[in-house]
Amino acid sequence: MSAKAKIGVLGASGYTGAELVRLLLRHPHAELVLLTADRRAGKPMSDVFPQFAPFALPTLTSIEATDFKSLGLDVAFCALPHGTTQKVIKDLLAKAPATKVVDLSADFRLSDPAAYARWYGHEHFAPELQKEAVYGLTEVYRAGVKKARLVANPGCYTTCSELPLIPLLKAKAINPDEIVIDAKSGMTGAGRAAKEEMLFSEVSEGFHAYGVGHHRHMAELDQEFSLAAGRDVVVTFTPHLVPMNRGILSTIYVRDAKASPQDLHAILLKSYANEPFVHVLPFGAVPQTRHVRGSNMTFIGVAADRIPGRAIICSTLDNLTKGASGQAVQNMNAMLGYPEAAGLDQVALFP
Amino acid sequence: MSAKAKIGVLGASGYTGAELVRLLLRHPHAELVLLTADRRAGKPMSDVFPQFAPFALPTLTSIEATDFKSLGLDVAFCALPHGTTQKVIKDLLAKAPATKVVDLSADFRLSDPAAYARWYGHEHFAPELQKEAVYGLTEVYRAGVKKARLVANPGCYTTCSELPLIPLLKAKAINPDEIVIDAKSGMTGAGRAAKEEMLFSEVSEGFHAYGVGHHRHMAELDQEFSLAAGRDVVVTFTPHLVPMNRGILSTIYVRDAKASPQDLHAILLKSYANEPFVHVLPFGAVPQTRHVRGSNMTFIGVAADRIPGRAIICSTLDNLTKGASGQAVQNMNAMLGYPEAAGLDQVALFP
Amino acid sequence: MSAKAKIGVLGASGYTGAELVRLLLRHPHAELVLLTADRRAGKPMSDVFPQFAPFALPTLTSIEATDFKSLGLDVAFCALPHGTTQKVIKDLLAKAPATKVVDLSADFRLSDPAAYARWYGHEHFAPELQKEAVYGLTEVYRAGVKKARLVANPGCYTTCSELPLIPLLKAKAINPDEIVIDAKSGMTGAGRAAKEEMLFSEVSEGFHAYGVGHHRHMAELDQEFSLAAGRDVVVTFTPHLVPMNRGILSTIYVRDAKASPQDLHAILLKSYANEPFVHVLPFGAVPQTRHVRGSNMTFIGVAADRIPGRAIICSTLDNLTKGASGQAVQNMNAMLGYPEAAGLDQVALFP
Amino acid sequence: MSAKAKIGVLGASGYTGAELVRLLLRHPHAELVLLTADRRAGKPMSDVFPQFAPFALPTLTSIEATDFKSLGLDVAFCALPHGTTQKVIKDLLAKAPATKVVDLSADFRLSDPAAYARWYGHEHFAPELQKEAVYGLTEVYRAGVKKARLVANPGCYTTCSELPLIPLLKAKAINPDEIVIDAKSGMTGAGRAAKEEMLFSEVSEGFHAYGVGHHRHMAELDQEFSLAAGRDVVVTFTPHLVPMNRGILSTIYVRDAKASPQDLHAILLKSYANEPFVHVLPFGAVPQTRHVRGSNMTFIGVAADRIPGRAIICSTLDNLTKGASGQAVQNMNAMLGYPEAAGLDQVALFP
Repeated sequence: MSAKAKIGVLGASGYTGAELVRLLLRHPHAELVLLTADRRAGKPMSDVFPQFAPFALPTLTSIEATDFKSLGLDVAFCALPHGTTQKVIKDLLAKAPATKVVDLSADFRLSDPAAYARWYGHEHFAPELQKEAVYGLTEVYRAGVKKARLVANPGCYTTCSELPLIPLLKAKAINPDEIVIDAKSGMTGAGRAAKEEMLFSEVSEGFHAYGVGHHRHMAELDQEFSLAAGRDVVVTFTPHLVPMNRGILSTIYVRDAKASPQDLHAILLKSYANEPFVHVLPFGAVPQTRHVRGSNMTFIGVAADRIPGRAIICSTLDNLTKGASGQAVQNMNAMLGYPEAAGLDQVALFP
Repeated sequence: MSAKAKIGVLGASGYTGAELVRLLLRHPHAELVLLTADRRAGKPMSDVFPQFAPFALPTLTSIEATDFKSLGLDVAFCALPHGTTQKVIKDLLAKAPATKVVDLSADFRLSDPAAYARWYGHEHFAPELQKEAVYGLTEVYRAGVKKARLVANPGCYTTCSELPLIPLLKAKAINPDEIVIDAKSGMTGAGRAAKEEMLFSEVSEGFHAYGVGHHRHMAELDQEFSLAAGRDVVVTFTPHLVPMNRGILSTIYVRDAKASPQDLHAILLKSYANEPFVHVLPFGAVPQTRHVRGSNMTFIGVAADRIPGRAIICSTLDNLTKGASGQAVQNMNAMLGYPEAAGLDQVALFP
Repeated sequence: MSAKAKIGVLGASGYTGAELVRLLLRHPHAELVLLTADRRAGKPMSDVFPQFAPFALPTLTSIEATDFKSLGLDVAFCALPHGTTQKVIKDLLAKAPATKVVDLSADFRLSDPAAYARWYGHEHFAPELQKEAVYGLTEVYRAGVKKARLVANPGCYTTCSELPLIPLLKAKAINPDEIVIDAKSGMTGAGRAAKEEMLFSEVSEGFHAYGVGHHRHMAELDQEFSLAAGRDVVVTFTPHLVPMNRGILSTIYVRDAKASPQDLHAILLKSYANEPFVHVLPFGAVPQTRHVRGSNMTFIGVAADRIPGRAIICSTLDNLTKGASGQAVQNMNAMLGYPEAAGLDQVALFP
Repeated sequence: MSAKAKIGVLGASGYTGAELVRLLLRHPHAELVLLTADRRAGKPMSDVFPQFAPFALPTLTSIEATDFKSLGLDVAFCALPHGTTQKVIKDLLAKAPATKVVDLSADFRLSDPAAYARWYGHEHFAPELQKEAVYGLTEVYRAGVKKARLVANPGCYTTCSELPLIPLLKAKAINPDEIVIDAKSGMTGAGRAAKEEMLFSEVSEGFHAYGVGHHRHMAELDQEFSLAAGRDVVVTFTPHLVPMNRGILSTIYVRDAKASPQDLHAILLKSYANEPFVHVLPFGAVPQTRHVRGSNMTFIGVAADRIPGRAIICSTLDNLTKGASGQAVQNMNAMLGYPEAAGLDQVALFP
């Protein structure tokens, strides 16, 4: 490996791609040598994201035109649409088996091929890689991530729910059958594709739920919560859209016959005492999305409901940072043996 | 009564006051003869709300300087801060006992003096009027409202939760011990008082919960849900702030061993079949705040959760219209024998 | 004509179409009998604009499937994209010559065929109708509008600049060679087509100019300002996008050797003394877009610059109402002999 | 001086104070040893800005309780309200004459005491310091800043106008009597004081001008433009408020008989070729506020007006970064002999 790791970003014209570039431009051990964007191939990155105009960056190219073998990437980040990624990564790893891959799509998150087929409507295109892939919730799977060649970076909604709930499920401190997750996300979570329902005039000055009762993120939640609890767990999950760019806040209703809300708080405090990117607020305090904006932090608050035996947990992160590209860089750091916080020291931008 | 009812708005410099003026300016049977705003007395209304510059309106005056006896108001709307209202209305009705009053504060909403004292920290200042007051959720208490001299207009959060839940509780179609209300409100619900936490730069581009586990609206919910269920009901309720001006959306999690989500939908459809201001969407459809903005409509959607026996109800209204001033005018119409929709035919402003 | 005029809206799935429906639903003399939306034909209007769910409206149909002859519309509003309108109206009037048409596109605004060809890059498809068309700035061309069969409704930017400037140019009170118009518009002015640059995440939390030095609205400004001044007038005009849904504010820099800013104010006050939809603020006062939102009002303020002989005029309107559909209804009222303000009494929605 | 410079931030509970902390937390050569906030003295910084909860920071204290002499600050940043600063700095420098001061208020920006008295209505409280102060537009006054003990950091509006205009005035490439600056700012420019007119519900979903014809920033513009032109220059300047948190965009109308718009562009390109924080876009390109958000960059675009001999310049920066705290850190770097970009390498946060 050269002094700096050679990095490629596949899908640099989308929001998670741009966020990767933002973070990696300031990473002490990374060098961006490849940016792909099939429909914008041949253009400078500043054409699709003018904020990068002052920086020297590789010209956008297409995946097809890229010679992964001779390029010898240390790490490839895949920020491509769900579904297209399987074939791209299969092909990339066939040509450059030493390259490590962090995939930001949902393609490799489900370890059970049957679950994948059920939720996505087709057999997986790279089942052998799916077996190899490690689920990249760094705080939970750090040991596996460090040894992985292919990491499936978790979804934004799921990271925001899993960080507070997995320690509680592992500790058997909450009833797994009584979890309600009411999640709210900013608009960048929907990506950059031009859709009528994502126009400013459609979504500003308003609020609504979507995917009520059925949303693909549930598959990932089911998998991880069941693993944590050691039994099948199915939660209620409702996503909503907030007229803001960045941020997810999950309001999570939990209960238990024995563990008090203060007990739950204590478990989370202890679980994350040494984690640089998870901050548990004092008991009763409530986090806000704006206080993590642009940073890789997750803020978690625990409060007592007025109904005895029930607690309300609020968890927040920036969907593009800890919910996607920041966590991807965190995983890269783990995979390459760098300090896990390298390049991730941005302080939240508020106001 | 003259050809048009003589109307006064006490507290015209706040948002619900302005909303009353907006609606009443176009009401066929109402004439605005009094607008009070103690700190702005002597100024034209257009000084505090420039949108009214093209209209002829009474100059702002103070409550103290108002001679309620000789003014002979048919209806007084009280849009004053919680707590100050009790004395004002007591005094007004002493001087002008024939005036009808619609109070938009929380002061007369709790019929139980002990509950009032417990939630507000002091004995009620007008307990005899509290007994007389009728809770003004028009769709539920229409008969009482028609005969009332003093109507306690419901809160915005509570209206948005009570309209979907009261018929279901009355029908015993949901488990009263398993109701979770995750509510989200636009910023106008917080009023016009200058507070740091309501500054644009503090609340735009972000989202957060507040009053977690304890919020005064709970008292009103407890009262009405218990009445509907015929037993004590305590719900989980979490309010959140959305960076938008108008609108509340409540995501309500309910369950029942026997009634299916489709049954719940059918009950609501039937309950509101003839109501002009409650619209139940087709089963599975999800309402958005923006589609009721500026109108007196409530939209309610019912969907099945993926967990059998559980349903997710979304309910939305404009907190300043159906959640406050629109419902107040609706109550006035009922009290004066006008068609209930008079002056309330605004179509929602979207986009 | 029947008791109510029979109205068609061509292009009901766009924002100006929806705004026409909002206004006409409450118009005392109008009945909506036709709504077209080619790609949504066969669907209910509530599918494309859920706010109309509580109202009975014609099912969306296609223009091709419409029998204009037998339908016998009194008025057809064309809210179709620029360029497609000419052929549609030509065909419509061939089949139903008694129908009156208000066209909200730019297709018939330029009376000079050479100017049209120069700005739009092709010969006009209906040159004979172009001659017949009356420019629908109601306050200026009322007499012509009343007799017109085809009215070309002005653009939103242009209405906002023309209302303050035409009286001043006519009075020769400002130097026609020294006019700078710095215009800012909300996002609905860009329409509902799904374009990347109009996504919420692209345009919220930011501000920018576009079309600097060259924008098609200039053709319309040139025509009207030259007519008013009696000589060729070319102005500097820069449009900007504001992260809000509705509203245009034009900051206009003018100067004159003789007329003082106060003189300019006096001219405007006098010009619009009897106009229901143009309100001139007291000298020195500054209008805000939010105070005209959802109404058909234009607010105009005049202030002195600190450089002697120069004035700053701020003018604001709602681009969908007075800037498009409201003015279209105002023109319809004039064409049919109704009171000009019929159906246009909405008070601005603020906050 | 120790290995790291010892830094104090006076006024840490305001927005520019928080922005200083955000930047200095990641500065390789700075150590925050003092944070003052008189009304919040004794509280942790995370109480007033929760985004700092994960970081170790000094507890807030009052200026009065601070022993500047023994503290031995290398640099004090003053982020206090205009007017109060003069006395604070006078006192601070009397006690700790070796401390260098960067003042973010307007108190020391005007070098002419008569101009100060005229614009602010009272004699300056520290006239001898006013003489010493160096105006901190780093790109223009770098040599002076490097030697200064007291730097008056420029205003946000003024920086955004001066960076494009000073080189053109110095080159005599534009007519100094024909400059119109139409400026638009995000809401954080108004600070964190609780004022009704800055509430979310007052300023979202709308746009307006303020201070038309008279605004205190004009004094600073007059001073700097006159210095650059070598003669008195008075410009037309109109500020506006945009419903966004951060960002200023100035649309500047200039003209000249000889220099073409392309000439102006060439002058700016050359002037800023080696500046890290000023980026001149290709001719005709237009900058957006969002592309500099959270960074210390200024983007400048030059385009031709359609009127020959006239150009339109758009200039943008983040009012809290390059318009305030970022420039303050840039000045500190120059004053202490650090690389000027140290701690200022944040890439803009978009979306």
